[in-house]
Amino acid sequence: MEPTEKVTYDRWDGIAPIDTRYAKDVIPLVPFLSENAFTDYKLEAECALVATLAELGLCSSDVLDEVTEACKQITTDEVYKEEDLTRHDIRAVVNCIQARVSPEARPFVHLAATSYDIIDTANVARYKAVTEQVLLPALIELEKVLIDLALREKAQLQVGRTHGQHAVPITFGNAISKYVDALGQKILKLCQAKNGLVGKFSGAVGAYNASSLLVDDPREFERLVLGRLGVNPAPISTQIAPPEPLQYLLFEVVQTAGLLAGLSRDMRNLQRTEIAEVGEFFEAGQVGSSTMPDKQNPINFENAESLYKVLVGRWVTVQLDQICEHQRDLTNSASGRTYGEILGYLYIVVTKITKTMKKLQVHTGNMERNLEMRKGSCGEQLYILLAKHGHPDAHEAVRLLTLESKETGVSVQDLALQSQKLRTYINTFNASELATIKDPAHNYIGLSIESTERIVGQWTEILGSLTI
Amino acid sequence: MEPTEKVTYDRWDGIAPIDTRYAKDVIPLVPFLSENAFTDYKLEAECALVATLAELGLCSSDVLDEVTEACKQITTDEVYKEEDLTRHDIRAVVNCIQARVSPEARPFVHLAATSYDIIDTANVARYKAVTEQVLLPALIELEKVLIDLALREKAQLQVGRTHGQHAVPITFGNAISKYVDALGQKILKLCQAKNGLVGKFSGAVGAYNASSLLVDDPREFERLVLGRLGVNPAPISTQIAPPEPLQYLLFEVVQTAGLLAGLSRDMRNLQRTEIAEVGEFFEAGQVGSSTMPDKQNPINFENAESLYKVLVGRWVTVQLDQICEHQRDLTNSASGRTYGEILGYLYIVVTKITKTMKKLQVHTGNMERNLEMRKGSCGEQLYILLAKHGHPDAHEAVRLLTLESKETGVSVQDLALQSQKLRTYINTFNASELATIKDPAHNYIGLSIESTERIVGQWTEILGSLTI
Amino acid sequence: MEPTEKVTYDRWDGIAPIDTRYAKDVIPLVPFLSENAFTDYKLEAECALVATLAELGLCSSDVLDEVTEACKQITTDEVYKEEDLTRHDIRAVVNCIQARVSPEARPFVHLAATSYDIIDTANVARYKAVTEQVLLPALIELEKVLIDLALREKAQLQVGRTHGQHAVPITFGNAISKYVDALGQKILKLCQAKNGLVGKFSGAVGAYNASSLLVDDPREFERLVLGRLGVNPAPISTQIAPPEPLQYLLFEVVQTAGLLAGLSRDMRNLQRTEIAEVGEFFEAGQVGSSTMPDKQNPINFENAESLYKVLVGRWVTVQLDQICEHQRDLTNSASGRTYGEILGYLYIVVTKITKTMKKLQVHTGNMERNLEMRKGSCGEQLYILLAKHGHPDAHEAVRLLTLESKETGVSVQDLALQSQKLRTYINTFNASELATIKDPAHNYIGLSIESTERIVGQWTEILGSLTI
Amino acid sequence: MEPTEKVTYDRWDGIAPIDTRYAKDVIPLVPFLSENAFTDYKLEAECALVATLAELGLCSSDVLDEVTEACKQITTDEVYKEEDLTRHDIRAVVNCIQARVSPEARPFVHLAATSYDIIDTANVARYKAVTEQVLLPALIELEKVLIDLALREKAQLQVGRTHGQHAVPITFGNAISKYVDALGQKILKLCQAKNGLVGKFSGAVGAYNASSLLVDDPREFERLVLGRLGVNPAPISTQIAPPEPLQYLLFEVVQTAGLLAGLSRDMRNLQRTEIAEVGEFFEAGQVGSSTMPDKQNPINFENAESLYKVLVGRWVTVQLDQICEHQRDLTNSASGRTYGEILGYLYIVVTKITKTMKKLQVHTGNMERNLEMRKGSCGEQLYILLAKHGHPDAHEAVRLLTLESKETGVSVQDLALQSQKLRTYINTFNASELATIKDPAHNYIGLSIESTERIVGQWTEILGSLTI
Repeated sequence: MEPTEKVTYDRWDGIAPIDTRYAKDVIPLVPFLSENAFTDYKLEAECALVATLAELGLCSSDVLDEVTEACKQITTDEVYKEEDLTRHDIRAVVNCIQARVSPEARPFVHLAATSYDIIDTANVARYKAVTEQVLLPALIELEKVLIDLALREKAQLQVGRTHGQHAVPITFGNAISKYVDALGQKILKLCQAKNGLVGKFSGAVGAYNASSLLVDDPREFERLVLGRLGVNPAPISTQIAPPEPLQYLLFEVVQTAGLLAGLSRDMRNLQRTEIAEVGEFFEAGQVGSSTMPDKQNPINFENAESLYKVLVGRWVTVQLDQICEHQRDLTNSASGRTYGEILGYLYIVVTKITKTMKKLQVHTGNMERNLEMRKGSCGEQLYILLAKHGHPDAHEAVRLLTLESKETGVSVQDLALQSQKLRTYINTFNASELATIKDPAHNYIGLSIESTERIVGQWTEILGSLTI
Repeated sequence: MEPTEKVTYDRWDGIAPIDTRYAKDVIPLVPFLSENAFTDYKLEAECALVATLAELGLCSSDVLDEVTEACKQITTDEVYKEEDLTRHDIRAVVNCIQARVSPEARPFVHLAATSYDIIDTANVARYKAVTEQVLLPALIELEKVLIDLALREKAQLQVGRTHGQHAVPITFGNAISKYVDALGQKILKLCQAKNGLVGKFSGAVGAYNASSLLVDDPREFERLVLGRLGVNPAPISTQIAPPEPLQYLLFEVVQTAGLLAGLSRDMRNLQRTEIAEVGEFFEAGQVGSSTMPDKQNPINFENAESLYKVLVGRWVTVQLDQICEHQRDLTNSASGRTYGEILGYLYIVVTKITKTMKKLQVHTGNMERNLEMRKGSCGEQLYILLAKHGHPDAHEAVRLLTLESKETGVSVQDLALQSQKLRTYINTFNASELATIKDPAHNYIGLSIESTERIVGQWTEILGSLTI
Repeated sequence: MEPTEKVTYDRWDGIAPIDTRYAKDVIPLVPFLSENAFTDYKLEAECALVATLAELGLCSSDVLDEVTEACKQITTDEVYKEEDLTRHDIRAVVNCIQARVSPEARPFVHLAATSYDIIDTANVARYKAVTEQVLLPALIELEKVLIDLALREKAQLQVGRTHGQHAVPITFGNAISKYVDALGQKILKLCQAKNGLVGKFSGAVGAYNASSLLVDDPREFERLVLGRLGVNPAPISTQIAPPEPLQYLLFEVVQTAGLLAGLSRDMRNLQRTEIAEVGEFFEAGQVGSSTMPDKQNPINFENAESLYKVLVGRWVTVQLDQICEHQRDLTNSASGRTYGEILGYLYIVVTKITKTMKKLQVHTGNMERNLEMRKGSCGEQLYILLAKHGHPDAHEAVRLLTLESKETGVSVQDLALQSQKLRTYINTFNASELATIKDPAHNYIGLSIESTERIVGQWTEILGSLTI
Repeated sequence: MEPTEKVTYDRWDGIAPIDTRYAKDVIPLVPFLSENAFTDYKLEAECALVATLAELGLCSSDVLDEVTEACKQITTDEVYKEEDLTRHDIRAVVNCIQARVSPEARPFVHLAATSYDIIDTANVARYKAVTEQVLLPALIELEKVLIDLALREKAQLQVGRTHGQHAVPITFGNAISKYVDALGQKILKLCQAKNGLVGKFSGAVGAYNASSLLVDDPREFERLVLGRLGVNPAPISTQIAPPEPLQYLLFEVVQTAGLLAGLSRDMRNLQRTEIAEVGEFFEAGQVGSSTMPDKQNPINFENAESLYKVLVGRWVTVQLDQICEHQRDLTNSASGRTYGEILGYLYIVVTKITKTMKKLQVHTGNMERNLEMRKGSCGEQLYILLAKHGHPDAHEAVRLLTLESKETGVSVQDLALQSQKLRTYINTFNASELATIKDPAHNYIGLSIESTERIVGQWTEILGSLTI
């Protein structure tokens, strides 16, 4: 048996999880990121070239028709079989086209193009398309889910946590709005990045040597060819387009995954048995553990952080592809072929997190219970109010009360209200100020609600008018 | 002897090369990036707070005067000695200030601030300042050096190189303009990134809990405090400002180093003994090798690539600092303290490359000699012109000529001109087309010159109107 | 159409190049690294458990027969369909087995096992097997190719190169022996690393809670189960085996790729048009460039470096998987699924480099020609011999000669032989010493040949007695 | 003012935190890792060369005395001033020595050495020494602290945690022994790695060209020179020693930091307000928060994870230094100068964690309280015992009980004991089996204690006989 064929028959012979375990999760990206898609986009770029030649009268419309028709029929498999002979990927594409057209049409196929005029342009076209049509819509959906959650929970009290320790209170909606804002920013950055992508049609060393033989204005010619794929030309290129614009896109992708990993880490910690403020929805029939049937684990949140670790590593590869010797070396070729996976992994993360956040169980009772642990912890507001009302060393005074509280078991709050030394200051507190001391858990949330509303409002407006 | 003091006396007891071997190279950054500078910026942030309190009538101008005066006197050493007692860096700063002011002024020091209101704001202020005042000017100087070089060498023929192999010709100026454009882009991106930096004055968990006790509009209060340091507030923060804006700045820094590493790699390869198209200037008295006194090595270019490898690694750390649990954990603190080095290393790279490119020896004779090796290599233009003039399988025809040329030693050019099969096509070539076949080294440079002029023109104009 | 099924039908719908473009190159690894292979190994681990239960008399041999038979029939597809219901990967495996056995056998399936008792053990078994059966043999083959090359070229003079500049001469075989030694070391390290891999059968939190209910000596029980797969148990585990042993294996894999990337970089540079000391073999019919038919590019060497950049990134992910909270969190799960690709990419690199080095064209004429450029460059030996013969400042004397040589065009060698100042010293040189001055290119190669023989001899011996 | 001098006067003008904020923490490493130390080790290597020349009768003992005396007097500052003139670091060292010795001694200084014969050997010597004398002792001390803790807490019940969710119980000592074993392994690996370090004295391209002019057996000569610094020679070298041995050392360093970051993450999570099973010791006078005086934060554990993130990045740089063109390029020079920091940061982490673990507050009451939350959670043991006693579908039966428990609020344990369906099976449980159901928190800890004792015993023995 010829081994390649075996691979063809069974997807489970794949090695990369994105093509096996996670294959279902990335189905919407297959029309852009699969090897088949790559073939299609390369053929589209070859067509765009001939169409431009026809537009400029350099070949007949019959030639264009022939080439267009040929490109429709060519399969990836056919191209790979040809490549087995030529050992050159784009030459194989060209041969496949030429084999299907008349001798008259043949010379115009790939005319004046270098391989990377086709490859870089095809890649930019498909990365741009997948970002516009799949990734950004998915991110916007998640943003809306977060907006809804933040708004719904804008007044739900939650203890603030720094260093994993209870700090002063916020609201759960406020905690979520941090992610609303950060994700919103990333959506805008991804829009910019995909709009900044550039292709090229400047020939073997980027100096338009070849196209200069054909046309008077090779830059205009480049614009026309690329324009047919919706791609802008690079200001200057070598054999390849400059790496940075694509690096920006991939950078934002990795960073967006980092953001969602951060959200996931937060949710996982809030789901800890002792904290239990949130919970991943658990489907009927779902098994938590193969050995402990009663466990409900935050597996989607864990998965998101795991895939983020994958992407942190992927970025290093992208970064290293920046250096390319002289008018190009090929050391970015094999590595560049893995870039599609980066987009794929983000998509998996986004859809999992969207689904999970949409169904997030919020245990408000536990939020209250945990917040209650701060009953009497009025240190911050006490020191500020003491200072505001003239105490010369408020921070130290409160620190001493805290130590006393630890030793005696009496709350800082009670110690403060009983203290002779502090009486003069506390007597000048107004009612609202006193309330933050007496019930610190409930009366000391600053602008938690207002900030949530402000952020949610801003991003609702921005999303409303956003054109991808 | 107390060991700390020993360290004080001798800079050569330092461990990091940026503080020993490269200390001289980063002197212009010391006022921003040193620990002393950090102290100064933190004190400035504490002053800005009191100044705002005074502006709003919450304290007297005498208090402000006292605090301002105190801050002028405080040294890093003093703060560290205090921190040995408190074990808290910002509390130490506050204690140092309070120790120098009257009991009346004390309560207003650090009032309603959390540590990172001061630290994040101080850091943003100094990173912004160093970018504006040192890094960007240095990059702009390098950009001008590259522009001058590209312009001077715009017509200097050079063989194009792909895969390290000779390809069709360009000009040396054209090769340099690739870097003119890329560096220009980076300068603009760095401008954006430093303008996008944000600080915060939103208290312990980012909800303005504390400042809400003092003022009616805590967001406006934040704007006033930060405004005094020229810093914009984050749309929403936790105990810390969101990490992404600073990540963008550091990302651009690393990428800029990558660009210059690419330029350096090119120059190093062009300096290879067998190629010898360029050379690093060698100062009188300079020793090339401790054992081979006649060697001239591209050490500055090598150094640039080496420091780029340092920065690739540094980025990973910055990336990992994106995740911060809940309203913050402290795992970005020690790592964040190393960010200044990132800016420092780029500065070293930029200044070295500027100096080296300014004095770059361009051996035009060797460029000509190397280009001569392509004498007769007219494959690309021959195939395009044959195709243009109707040959149905031009690429294959030229490939066969190439093989024949290898076997016979006759140049492709001569074989083509003698070929019966090709005669019909070649006879239709016009004079200029024939010239690209007959003298491919000199008559086939496409838009090399025009592209150089275009790119150089664009960036000269942009730099001319750039406000940092 | 159900999208999963589509993916099944066409391998070119895959996204990861390892499953599309490079699928053919990794065929020998499919029996170990594919999802199908993973299923098989997990089933084998489940069988090993039941076999051990039978061995200890805890279940009958009929039960074992049933389970063994069931496991033979189960397909990955079936398991995935079951997982769609249970949402738990190992529960799905267990259900598939249980569905095929009698009620009597069912309780013994997966009894006392936690998921990762199966998964970690299965992974270790297959990674160990693929290393032993595929990776190490491939590396040993390459090592033999390098040994042969080094031996054949042990006396072929080549100029030494430091900083890309000509230095004193070596032999080409000597340059290759550096890689013989380094690759040999890696082979030994990979052997150690695969032998150090450990699995586990210690239950949900690693304390043998479950197996303690079944057997008196759970550690012995673990040894028995794992022994059936040729796997050693971890000294102590949690829900998972400790990450470090597998990290060592993957680390060596990445490092080995780094080594071969270094070799590739060297070969690419030696293949530069101007240097041309080596060349990648070019197959008949192979196309060098889609636009420049006469180019022969070092694409396999470039590919190796490109894949190395992929692996540098992959390592970061592996590194980040070291931290696992408490008795485990799941954030190493999705990322861990990509580890097989790491082994796969190294295999691609090794086989490409083996093929390429085997057919490497060595252009000895060009090696001689390039070495000739050093004619007269006798700086190092001159300074040493002068010093040896008593000159008090030999290095400086030679440096001055070098400058004089640059200005006058007279070789250092001739200047030295003519120099009055040096005469007293040079007159004391013996014949062999004089020869290193007079023909430095040929008479100054130190132990190049002996070192080559020594290294080649050592590794031939080690490989001869190596048991994988 | 000359800027260098300014830097000299104030250590707080440093940029790298390792030389400012953390300078005190790395004092024990200064004699190995500072620039002064580097100078000393280079001088020692130069002395070793002359000593060997004297030993072999190639120079007189007077020459050796002169050189030895000179080396004692030379300061880093002097060398750097000389380098300002020569622009070559090792030439500067040599000139400084030569300036202090007689014309007769001068020729023997650095004779036949290339720069990296000195530099690589000096670096290996000091990295080996600092590992032996500082790092390993510090790690062994921590290992002993962990051993003591594990032993003391070997029977202290603690809930096991997977996915952050309560799982079956272990003991706290068992949780710690995971780190005892992992750290023990790292100590052994670090020993191996430092013993595997190799230097070189093989000249400018590694072929002993120069030393062949002086001695009959240059390999033996190399062994003698290096032996004086306790350094082994590389099997084969180029201008530099092969990078891998040092990479192994640095790899183990980074991995060890990863291990301690994992420990720190665990401790931080156990210190969460709601969990509160452990606490960092808090010194009298220490301030927890500048604004919330009552907070006690796990700052040392956070610091350890932060510095680990620093080291993850540093590894990438070390990895990238593996590739070195031909007989060397210099792109590993500047980056290599930062390696000392890697050792320094690990040392900071180790000493902080040692101090913190030594004083770790273990809140056993809270461990009990948290474990109580599992009261009634007997799912795992119930399913295993049911299966052991013949239930054909035990896992599913328990899963259904779990759901019922959620709906009714009755514990799984009670539901099981009341269940008609399960009665037949449960009636066959023996007393000890029943106990694991009735009090799952206390009677289901498997080998937690035995494993702890075993691991602790093993490592106590290994450490007892370990020769560093």
